[in-house]
Amino acid sequence: MIKTAILGGSGYTGLELLRILESHPKAEVIAVTSRQYKGCKLEEVFPSLNGFSKLKFGDPANFNVLSKADLIFSALPHHTSMEIVPELLKKGKKVIDLSADFRLKDAKTYEAWYGKHIAKNLLKKAAYGLPELHRGKIKNAELVANPGCYPTGAILGLAPAIAAGIIDVNTIVIDSKSGVSGAGRSASLDTSFAEVNEGFKAYKVGEHRHTPEIEQEISLIAGKIITVTFTPHLLSVNRGILSTMYASLNSKGVTYSKAVDIYKKYYNNEFFIRMMPEDVFPNTAQVKGSNFCDIGLKIDKRTGRLIVITAIDNLVKGASGQAVQNMNIVFGLPETTGLGTPPLSI
Amino acid sequence: MIKTAILGGSGYTGLELLRILESHPKAEVIAVTSRQYKGCKLEEVFPSLNGFSKLKFGDPANFNVLSKADLIFSALPHHTSMEIVPELLKKGKKVIDLSADFRLKDAKTYEAWYGKHIAKNLLKKAAYGLPELHRGKIKNAELVANPGCYPTGAILGLAPAIAAGIIDVNTIVIDSKSGVSGAGRSASLDTSFAEVNEGFKAYKVGEHRHTPEIEQEISLIAGKIITVTFTPHLLSVNRGILSTMYASLNSKGVTYSKAVDIYKKYYNNEFFIRMMPEDVFPNTAQVKGSNFCDIGLKIDKRTGRLIVITAIDNLVKGASGQAVQNMNIVFGLPETTGLGTPPLSI
Amino acid sequence: MIKTAILGGSGYTGLELLRILESHPKAEVIAVTSRQYKGCKLEEVFPSLNGFSKLKFGDPANFNVLSKADLIFSALPHHTSMEIVPELLKKGKKVIDLSADFRLKDAKTYEAWYGKHIAKNLLKKAAYGLPELHRGKIKNAELVANPGCYPTGAILGLAPAIAAGIIDVNTIVIDSKSGVSGAGRSASLDTSFAEVNEGFKAYKVGEHRHTPEIEQEISLIAGKIITVTFTPHLLSVNRGILSTMYASLNSKGVTYSKAVDIYKKYYNNEFFIRMMPEDVFPNTAQVKGSNFCDIGLKIDKRTGRLIVITAIDNLVKGASGQAVQNMNIVFGLPETTGLGTPPLSI
Amino acid sequence: MIKTAILGGSGYTGLELLRILESHPKAEVIAVTSRQYKGCKLEEVFPSLNGFSKLKFGDPANFNVLSKADLIFSALPHHTSMEIVPELLKKGKKVIDLSADFRLKDAKTYEAWYGKHIAKNLLKKAAYGLPELHRGKIKNAELVANPGCYPTGAILGLAPAIAAGIIDVNTIVIDSKSGVSGAGRSASLDTSFAEVNEGFKAYKVGEHRHTPEIEQEISLIAGKIITVTFTPHLLSVNRGILSTMYASLNSKGVTYSKAVDIYKKYYNNEFFIRMMPEDVFPNTAQVKGSNFCDIGLKIDKRTGRLIVITAIDNLVKGASGQAVQNMNIVFGLPETTGLGTPPLSI
Repeated sequence: MIKTAILGGSGYTGLELLRILESHPKAEVIAVTSRQYKGCKLEEVFPSLNGFSKLKFGDPANFNVLSKADLIFSALPHHTSMEIVPELLKKGKKVIDLSADFRLKDAKTYEAWYGKHIAKNLLKKAAYGLPELHRGKIKNAELVANPGCYPTGAILGLAPAIAAGIIDVNTIVIDSKSGVSGAGRSASLDTSFAEVNEGFKAYKVGEHRHTPEIEQEISLIAGKIITVTFTPHLLSVNRGILSTMYASLNSKGVTYSKAVDIYKKYYNNEFFIRMMPEDVFPNTAQVKGSNFCDIGLKIDKRTGRLIVITAIDNLVKGASGQAVQNMNIVFGLPETTGLGTPPLSI
Repeated sequence: MIKTAILGGSGYTGLELLRILESHPKAEVIAVTSRQYKGCKLEEVFPSLNGFSKLKFGDPANFNVLSKADLIFSALPHHTSMEIVPELLKKGKKVIDLSADFRLKDAKTYEAWYGKHIAKNLLKKAAYGLPELHRGKIKNAELVANPGCYPTGAILGLAPAIAAGIIDVNTIVIDSKSGVSGAGRSASLDTSFAEVNEGFKAYKVGEHRHTPEIEQEISLIAGKIITVTFTPHLLSVNRGILSTMYASLNSKGVTYSKAVDIYKKYYNNEFFIRMMPEDVFPNTAQVKGSNFCDIGLKIDKRTGRLIVITAIDNLVKGASGQAVQNMNIVFGLPETTGLGTPPLSI
Repeated sequence: MIKTAILGGSGYTGLELLRILESHPKAEVIAVTSRQYKGCKLEEVFPSLNGFSKLKFGDPANFNVLSKADLIFSALPHHTSMEIVPELLKKGKKVIDLSADFRLKDAKTYEAWYGKHIAKNLLKKAAYGLPELHRGKIKNAELVANPGCYPTGAILGLAPAIAAGIIDVNTIVIDSKSGVSGAGRSASLDTSFAEVNEGFKAYKVGEHRHTPEIEQEISLIAGKIITVTFTPHLLSVNRGILSTMYASLNSKGVTYSKAVDIYKKYYNNEFFIRMMPEDVFPNTAQVKGSNFCDIGLKIDKRTGRLIVITAIDNLVKGASGQAVQNMNIVFGLPETTGLGTPPLSI
Repeated sequence: MIKTAILGGSGYTGLELLRILESHPKAEVIAVTSRQYKGCKLEEVFPSLNGFSKLKFGDPANFNVLSKADLIFSALPHHTSMEIVPELLKKGKKVIDLSADFRLKDAKTYEAWYGKHIAKNLLKKAAYGLPELHRGKIKNAELVANPGCYPTGAILGLAPAIAAGIIDVNTIVIDSKSGVSGAGRSASLDTSFAEVNEGFKAYKVGEHRHTPEIEQEISLIAGKIITVTFTPHLLSVNRGILSTMYASLNSKGVTYSKAVDIYKKYYNNEFFIRMMPEDVFPNTAQVKGSNFCDIGLKIDKRTGRLIVITAIDNLVKGASGQAVQNMNIVFGLPETTGLGTPPLSI
């Protein structure tokens, strides 16, 4: 059994890690920390976990509990994570960091969007934890930077088209819609029920911090700098991100069947990528509670654009499920271990 | 008092017309028809109307009841509406048609998207009922073609930018999200609660029938044919359409303040258009139950694009409220008559 | 025009007062205070009000602004309201208090459930603002204690049966379900979107502070002390309270038709009470945004119980709408003034 | 591996059986039938299942496919199920029937509530599939009548109190609230999104067919006929039933701690029963996607009543999960096999 610990485990990504790992046949959680809830039983904070782990939330200041862990998931906020991760690595722990702190390779870019970075030396070393693109590097990584939720859906949707060179990378528009759990578990007027329910809005238009992360990864594929327009929206649902992406096709000859072939080849044998049939498009509901990324394609012949639509569960493929997928890779397990159950759907 | 009748009044646009007209100081509803519910009291179908009108749904075959009406709202489906409207006009009735039958000026375009048209002679005659753009023609029209819900939000959002020539009209992408009431009141698995709730999806991607309507109106403004990419999505809320629109700016010199000035001038004194402050964006909730169209703008400097976001209530500004606004114009009333109450918001 | 002011107007009852009074033909709002938002324009806090009142939230410490008001709505929290109301009354203002501070006639009961009371002398003087029961006293009151949301639906549903003596008052069980806006507008984990959405729970079981308020009013009708079991639940909707109430019938002879007659007579000509037809039961949706209380009855013959179901909008008949109804009474206007529009329904 | 087949598998209970059995280590689905979708791949009807079973929906008329099954789940509607089940039993198949056809032991009661029964001889033979109460009989049953969703939550909540004799069984009131998936997957105006969303209502008040099922089981425990008042309500959520139950206590001496002890002893070691701590009450969200029944208790001292609140997922413990639990019992597996994962919660 892989012994894992979770830092900052009282938020939604923590809950989701606990939920997934509880059913994982090769891993167990030996410690979870929470500044806010230290001393509380897990089920006092998360009643759904009643009957499972007997753990209590531990004091994050108490490092001893971590000493027996083989792998540490950091679900701490950015800036906080970078204060602790270097020390964990020094102690020989494998770390999968769910914060934004080690996702961007370029320190300047990080600092432009997030502010000061205090562990820049780790940026290049960290593997960007999108297995479908970086499996090889993840396998040998000590530190995996688990991707952001929006970037996961956006990059997986754009990568094949960019790699195949069928779209004009200067025309990419990413219109994303996320469920509210993406905003975390802290109480705030912005995510209060009556403020969100029965409404829909865009936020941080053209300014969301996930933008450089998307750009980094797709630029890497393209072999040149790509700048995208990215607009996140808030859906009055708990889970799910749907990203609708637009780009001009480089050639009129790209039919649906050619495009879907490009995607199927690119994602050959990827269990967690599911291509939708022609003229059927993903629904966030159909990936709920699962690690799948469903992808639908449309050639808009009238305007010569490719439309790519991806759906993920922001808490699973967009966070904790992908973190477990990364753990599986790091420890040489089949990637689907503990992640192979069907979505809840309704 | 203006005497009005509603044809096909047992759907959501019918209910909304009844709701709005009940509070209208200068209009009354003297007849409502419904094939399905003829003979039923209004409140048997719509319990919310209990205590208001004493009308029963009438048989649509019975034209006598319409003879006393000054104005007839047709909330019939497309194809059905065009069978009846010509007769109503012959009898000297003013007609506001909420179907798609008279919105497109070009019969070929209509037939390409909707099928056979049997009253083509009325197409040019009908006023396209978007008051902010066509007030003059509406005023003298016998037949007003009330705009579609998606086109209302899209056209109002794009018109000023196109008129001012600040965007490249070949780059327009319209990503729209609509509440479920837009799909009408007929029972269908696609709009069943558990199928829609907690999900989100795109549908009719690149193929929605509202596309030519949007293109007609913005082409008219541009003075040349514009083709757009339009993607509708289904929101798990009852009401509201948010449209997020993207286009490349023709010049780097277009700042937020210039752009918002263009919009404010274009919509000078329009009561139902509300421009949002900088970096604040509309929420469908804030227009709920009202005839407002709220507009937010963003210059995405990194990519040189204009992002325009509009929010409307699809049943009000996107249907029945706009129909009443058109009625007010046709009968020389202030446009806000019966439409001046604040949104329900939460 | 009646000049009104709203104290503590940045919560949901404040928003709702503003929304309703904006359409009221005989009243206007001349001041709104908010400690948290003083200095902000109304639409900065409530974007739905953009285009309406030009007011800014005033400092609650500044009493001058209130001096021109004829009537003051206090939407302050309990305990805070009782600190200010006596002063307002001394200055000759009429006050409608939406807090719990003046609803209970018995100071001991207040103190048992809410803590210390510092203006006990006003308790007897205040009119309990449920117009259908206390219209006469309200008319001449200087201070109206606007009822709680749960009590409004519960009392209106039980009053006729108790007055007619058809139920055993020792067997009353009230099972109520409220939308989230009833919890107010302060951010809290308990009312965060993802914590509430897609869930349902009871809270404060057997201990909710609205219990003594219900008991006071129905005891008054019965002419003896009644104790009830009251269980509130949290619905994942914005608005609405449905109360399902149970009591044993005193006689087997009470049929549906007798029961409904009793209710119809009791509420003869009450505009805001709507009795449902047999075997049709109220839905909170059908009163949304309105001041109606819809009532359905069922005789459960198998067990000899009466089941009464009432639906109200907690923010309207359960708070701000009823406050305006009380204002209308106090100022001699028809009670429906400004409150006569149909519910939004969907 | 247990070979299972599902009859009438294109509804929500069918989907849920497929979802659960896909992760079951000791069972597989070898056939699923659907009149409506015969010939379709599972994922064409349920896109969430893409990547799992390669089955197509089979023609229900084709019995051959069932011949290799060890166990057949019938998810057919009542009346249809009783036409097929006798034949299946004759062929030596074990059957778990999710319809109402074999739940009531008394044919007259069945016929009073559901209409004619054509396989009365099986009524006594069938085991009522509530494992926590009838494990012994289920173990040896050829036919298990899987309980209704409402009865599961109600019976599990009332059984310990009745068995211990602490409540007056003539005073039981059951106020239940169910998510929309309980109404099945057929399209209907009553379960259309916009008709249900943001509303809440009671239905079939005092007349729901699950009433006699509840009464049968609790009467059995009490050793005398019990009649209850049962009111179902429709929640605008996908999943979950919360039942709030009321009964007068026989003695003032019943404290919370005595009551909870009674429940804990009654459900000693039951994995799927979770007792909530004092003054904490179940939320349907915390059992979502799981086979748990969470139970909270309150002594309402003021009125001398016991309040019992239970939460289940209507599709899992209320239907397909319980069916799999029954299958596990019938085949001698640990009851939690395939059912041990934590709830999805948010």
